[in-house]
Amino acid sequence: MTVSREVELEGHIIDSGMMQSCFGIIMDLGGSFSVQEFDIGRHKDEESYARMLVEADDEDQLQSIVHELHQHGVNPSDPKDATLVPAPDDQVVPHGFYSTTNHPTYIRHDGEWIEVEDVEMDCAVVVEDGDRPRAYTKVLNAIEEGDLVVTDETGIKVQPPERPRDSGGAFGFMQGGVSSERPSESTIRKIANAIEETKKEGGKVMAVCGPALIHSGAREDLARLVREGYVDMLSAGNGFAVHDIERDIYGTSLGMDTESLDHPRHGHKHHIYTISEVIREGGIEEAVESGTIESGVMYECIDNDRPFVLAGSIRDDGPLPDTITDAVEAQNAIREQAHEADMVLMLSTLLHSVAVGNCLPSTTRVVCVDINPATVTQLLDRGSAQAVGMVTDIGTFVPILAEQLLSEE
Amino acid sequence: MTVSREVELEGHIIDSGMMQSCFGIIMDLGGSFSVQEFDIGRHKDEESYARMLVEADDEDQLQSIVHELHQHGVNPSDPKDATLVPAPDDQVVPHGFYSTTNHPTYIRHDGEWIEVEDVEMDCAVVVEDGDRPRAYTKVLNAIEEGDLVVTDETGIKVQPPERPRDSGGAFGFMQGGVSSERPSESTIRKIANAIEETKKEGGKVMAVCGPALIHSGAREDLARLVREGYVDMLSAGNGFAVHDIERDIYGTSLGMDTESLDHPRHGHKHHIYTISEVIREGGIEEAVESGTIESGVMYECIDNDRPFVLAGSIRDDGPLPDTITDAVEAQNAIREQAHEADMVLMLSTLLHSVAVGNCLPSTTRVVCVDINPATVTQLLDRGSAQAVGMVTDIGTFVPILAEQLLSEE
Amino acid sequence: MTVSREVELEGHIIDSGMMQSCFGIIMDLGGSFSVQEFDIGRHKDEESYARMLVEADDEDQLQSIVHELHQHGVNPSDPKDATLVPAPDDQVVPHGFYSTTNHPTYIRHDGEWIEVEDVEMDCAVVVEDGDRPRAYTKVLNAIEEGDLVVTDETGIKVQPPERPRDSGGAFGFMQGGVSSERPSESTIRKIANAIEETKKEGGKVMAVCGPALIHSGAREDLARLVREGYVDMLSAGNGFAVHDIERDIYGTSLGMDTESLDHPRHGHKHHIYTISEVIREGGIEEAVESGTIESGVMYECIDNDRPFVLAGSIRDDGPLPDTITDAVEAQNAIREQAHEADMVLMLSTLLHSVAVGNCLPSTTRVVCVDINPATVTQLLDRGSAQAVGMVTDIGTFVPILAEQLLSEE
Amino acid sequence: MTVSREVELEGHIIDSGMMQSCFGIIMDLGGSFSVQEFDIGRHKDEESYARMLVEADDEDQLQSIVHELHQHGVNPSDPKDATLVPAPDDQVVPHGFYSTTNHPTYIRHDGEWIEVEDVEMDCAVVVEDGDRPRAYTKVLNAIEEGDLVVTDETGIKVQPPERPRDSGGAFGFMQGGVSSERPSESTIRKIANAIEETKKEGGKVMAVCGPALIHSGAREDLARLVREGYVDMLSAGNGFAVHDIERDIYGTSLGMDTESLDHPRHGHKHHIYTISEVIREGGIEEAVESGTIESGVMYECIDNDRPFVLAGSIRDDGPLPDTITDAVEAQNAIREQAHEADMVLMLSTLLHSVAVGNCLPSTTRVVCVDINPATVTQLLDRGSAQAVGMVTDIGTFVPILAEQLLSEE
Repeated sequence: MTVSREVELEGHIIDSGMMQSCFGIIMDLGGSFSVQEFDIGRHKDEESYARMLVEADDEDQLQSIVHELHQHGVNPSDPKDATLVPAPDDQVVPHGFYSTTNHPTYIRHDGEWIEVEDVEMDCAVVVEDGDRPRAYTKVLNAIEEGDLVVTDETGIKVQPPERPRDSGGAFGFMQGGVSSERPSESTIRKIANAIEETKKEGGKVMAVCGPALIHSGAREDLARLVREGYVDMLSAGNGFAVHDIERDIYGTSLGMDTESLDHPRHGHKHHIYTISEVIREGGIEEAVESGTIESGVMYECIDNDRPFVLAGSIRDDGPLPDTITDAVEAQNAIREQAHEADMVLMLSTLLHSVAVGNCLPSTTRVVCVDINPATVTQLLDRGSAQAVGMVTDIGTFVPILAEQLLSEE
Repeated sequence: MTVSREVELEGHIIDSGMMQSCFGIIMDLGGSFSVQEFDIGRHKDEESYARMLVEADDEDQLQSIVHELHQHGVNPSDPKDATLVPAPDDQVVPHGFYSTTNHPTYIRHDGEWIEVEDVEMDCAVVVEDGDRPRAYTKVLNAIEEGDLVVTDETGIKVQPPERPRDSGGAFGFMQGGVSSERPSESTIRKIANAIEETKKEGGKVMAVCGPALIHSGAREDLARLVREGYVDMLSAGNGFAVHDIERDIYGTSLGMDTESLDHPRHGHKHHIYTISEVIREGGIEEAVESGTIESGVMYECIDNDRPFVLAGSIRDDGPLPDTITDAVEAQNAIREQAHEADMVLMLSTLLHSVAVGNCLPSTTRVVCVDINPATVTQLLDRGSAQAVGMVTDIGTFVPILAEQLLSEE
Repeated sequence: MTVSREVELEGHIIDSGMMQSCFGIIMDLGGSFSVQEFDIGRHKDEESYARMLVEADDEDQLQSIVHELHQHGVNPSDPKDATLVPAPDDQVVPHGFYSTTNHPTYIRHDGEWIEVEDVEMDCAVVVEDGDRPRAYTKVLNAIEEGDLVVTDETGIKVQPPERPRDSGGAFGFMQGGVSSERPSESTIRKIANAIEETKKEGGKVMAVCGPALIHSGAREDLARLVREGYVDMLSAGNGFAVHDIERDIYGTSLGMDTESLDHPRHGHKHHIYTISEVIREGGIEEAVESGTIESGVMYECIDNDRPFVLAGSIRDDGPLPDTITDAVEAQNAIREQAHEADMVLMLSTLLHSVAVGNCLPSTTRVVCVDINPATVTQLLDRGSAQAVGMVTDIGTFVPILAEQLLSEE
Repeated sequence: MTVSREVELEGHIIDSGMMQSCFGIIMDLGGSFSVQEFDIGRHKDEESYARMLVEADDEDQLQSIVHELHQHGVNPSDPKDATLVPAPDDQVVPHGFYSTTNHPTYIRHDGEWIEVEDVEMDCAVVVEDGDRPRAYTKVLNAIEEGDLVVTDETGIKVQPPERPRDSGGAFGFMQGGVSSERPSESTIRKIANAIEETKKEGGKVMAVCGPALIHSGAREDLARLVREGYVDMLSAGNGFAVHDIERDIYGTSLGMDTESLDHPRHGHKHHIYTISEVIREGGIEEAVESGTIESGVMYECIDNDRPFVLAGSIRDDGPLPDTITDAVEAQNAIREQAHEADMVLMLSTLLHSVAVGNCLPSTTRVVCVDINPATVTQLLDRGSAQAVGMVTDIGTFVPILAEQLLSEE
């Protein structure tokens, strides 16, 4: 005696691999299925539709199949409303709370599908009832007692985006694995095109930067990109800002002159002296205003009103007064930026890139650049549909990117 | 006015991703299709079958679609005989010769399907006519004038293997990307199981070894695996053998005592002295017989009649008299071994692993172990269906593997 | 017309490279010198002594030579008292403050040399006057208005430790570069010896752990080392604790069963569920007491009173109530631990290892283990005289280390 | 009762670290010493001189100390003639033969010091007697019966070069470890300067190239450097040439269009088709002459008479008729090139770089470029005094280098 449930697949179900995953999941979990309707889009812009009956030996098995299908965007044909349970305490979610993916998500409430706002991974979904009910994500530590939290998987619809297949689009390039053996200049040209397209569409570009960018001599070119408006906001750490400012005040980065490659005497003290100078002034903005800082990435951010977040970490010296030392507070600042970004450049920092990536929906365009293939792989594995990775030297990447973008004007 | 051709998909076409590739190829190349029959295996051991009509705007487009489908195991429903053209000269193939994949391949000849022997990648297929016609692969430099070489893609059937999905089997583990963040001991246990299963089935295990194995102190345990019959044959380079023998004669590897970690004085000369001693004896076997070599991997190979190939390279010192210095000759020796192997352990050598991998059909079990994730990724990308990779330290991997295999007896 | 100053070198000035550095510095900076006394220790336990007259063209040049010599432990023969300037404001150091190295340091005050307490890199030195004057380090953000801060370089003596040359001692192994091609088991044996020696001397061993340790299956063996007292304190991040506890509650780490290598369904939610369970309980200790957590590294820390610091970071989920989210507060907690440690094991985490390393004097024994050679190199470059690095798989390193330490009892 | 021997140190003995090594060796080996004369160069261009009496407990100990000192350029003050023993057979050296370093070496023969020609590592030294006696290196497999081979260490003088300390010279930059966090553009500028300086001095520049150079899109710029005479000779493998020519004939490299990043259909067959086309023509030169090959690195080599060596390897497809498949024969061809080179660019190939590096004296300028830091470290560890390493992307390095060199004309 078997139990069954009808499920539906819609969209680019072939292309996105959804159908294959779906069949695999059912069979892996010991169920079986019959395809009841199968309407394949025969051209690349046509969507497909399939309706299947999933069969299992018992209700438990069926539940776990349907749960798993749901994670891959396969939804029951007979949806019910989402289950809402009030949070028992601040920061405490109800048992069995629904933990989000980073894909566009819809909650069924009073028979209507509501899109979940600010989707990001590993959050709870809170529903605000009322005339115009809303649903949005909350991280665990933001949950307040009484929040109506979605539990179980009933009444939830997830839409994993299909991978872009058409190599014509600005982001339809470089699929597949991560390798350093790719045409570097051509790839940078494609990334420049994608930035320009994003700007043309009125989108915002966010740069997430590690200190290696400064050490490797790419500071001046990044500063130009900030000045010229190709970078709208910046997310970095204390070290990035310190090295950037050290280069302005002392001409060095970690004590090395990035032009002449000399190590001036006393150079190893420059970074701690830089910190003490900025503390003395009261902060970066004050140091720019007083003329202590006259160039560089941070200078251009201040001078051109590009918002930045400097997130603290336990390896910081100082830190600078601008650095947000509390991790939760810093995450909130990063989250706010991330939700505004239409394209994110992750430039040679694993820590900050993961932090930003955690807050991004799978629909945001992401470019990851690092010289370590393992870093690029780890960042791309986070499930963005619009992510490209490049294994290259940040110290040559930024100058070539800047030349592409700035010489075309 | 369109042209069309009927094609068929058979086997685990969902699981293996064949169907998805197929739809993708047609649409990417600007064609369209209609599914005429679709019989999906509803359980995991059932095969599926699909028959489709592929449509294109002209014959050229149709050809290129059908060609591409063919590479992915989709074959026309109305097969014709393969086209055979005699080779115009030694080492010279006819224009448009068919270049093989590493998947099981069949050639249609006189209306019959013949399996191609010794399938490996990037070869020509030569058909020997006669009462019992044969088809086999030949590398370019082995082609002789007059060989009947298969050209075009007519009358060729390729069967890409499905990936094993059931995690119960000895090789149904560790799918997905390459990472060092996997449970190391459990993975080694699984690999030990797979070796045991291979041996139980009467299969042969081949070890491909780099010199790092000796430097990292794994020599004694590999020697035990050779002695106890868990390794049936060995493929390595001159350096591997030299360092193995240096350890026997001088107690060092590259001049370092791998037990005490001391660097005895004169140690840096040991490897060149080792080479000169073996040359003086006339070869490894002679040096074993004379008692000059009394232990180690090469010793056990000689003592237990395990065949080995030492392939030369331009970075060799010496080389030893046993080292095959001609690359083509060495490839032929490797090829012979590879065709006999049922399971291949690739142990911390990119060069030799690629050379062996080039000669393997996609059905041979392969385990790649290296501390550099890029090496493991590159080896796994070669399209074996039965390959697992592990990013770990060869100096701890071999001892733990040996303990697993030898303590269970 | 030249100016000159007499300087002295004492100790293992040949062995430590001090003399070579000294001659190099003088000549690089355009000075010259005459050796006035040179008393070379002729055996390895004899110290040497040299007195030299450094000559330069002008006072500026002389100053910069003497400054640089000072960083390398060469001190003027005619010392004066250190210069003390009160800090103008909280967190603001006087101009020209002396920024510390991580070597043992002495301050001359009222004609007496006082050892600086809690030496670590990039700090200010504060002198507390009185009957028994003290000198100690303060990080910039701990400076309070009025603190007497040492400025310039007068009256400061630094003693860079010589590298241990004798391979007999527990730490006299593995000098030279970082490589994965070292004998792994022998090296782990040496590290086990050094841990035992440290414990025998009554010293404390601190483990700094990254989440890869859990993913790679080394959790149970690390837990045993904590239980048996080979690890006295733990420094890690939120993720490490979450994955450790996830393994206890759900049997998985990042959703993968580290024994069977299966990915149970729902597994990807386990880590966020783990966090929510611990939050619900109020913390790790509470969850241990209530029986929710019954095994693992954190469990053993609680059960055996081994202090731990969980430092927050911007990539944390949750975080757990035990995680210190403020970077400065977390640094202070780490600093306190670091000052108590006699030996530090840095296990597959760059972030936490750098944070701990920042707080260590150059005399603490350090072992860095990571599968990425760049990480090991970066950690060893921080100037500890007693540091060894090992490029290996943490998932095999910890089990082999545990076997060495625990089977010998 | 002790034995003793007088030794001398000459040259930049402080700077080069010779003195420190010398003291260390004596003490490590249980000896002692007294400095009898010590004449330190007080300015950076002055050489130093020291004469010491080395004491040991017995003759054996003294021998091993003196042997070790000798390896570091410390020579006895009372030299004797070198010991010459005839080789007993072809390829068989006398017992105790002297195995060379890569440093300039002199043999004492009939009371005169003769410079050893073509010094490279791990060779025997053969002396040709006669009116004007010569000494030169021979690799083991080139030894002929009766060759007079130098044995022991008597009468041999080695001169390890000092590291350049002055950062003004074209090669006086980038000392210290290998890191990707160096200023990339500035470093490439320095390398361009060193190439120009080498050319100005009438020197020859050799490029050693891996296939990644082609895949990463640097082919056109390298071709320009060959054409314009900045690269005088080329050492590479079969794969490099195949991919270079594939790009010319089919517009792809490994099947990918390096400009558009597209993968044209059939692309994966291009490399094997390229090989078969060149075989059909009879070789690269024939294919250039017939117009089959019209551009690229190999084309420019042929067109501008730049000699090239294509060394075979066991992972080659084909190979091309130009590829030398025998490793020993290939080494001899590489050796001949290497001895003519004044500067060697090692561009993203470990195998060929090691092979070339093996044949270089320590005085040749070497630049190693690779994206993998372990590769750069391994190449720099070979003891060249004039080597710089750079961890960067070859696909951006070559274009920026070419722009530096070609735009300045």
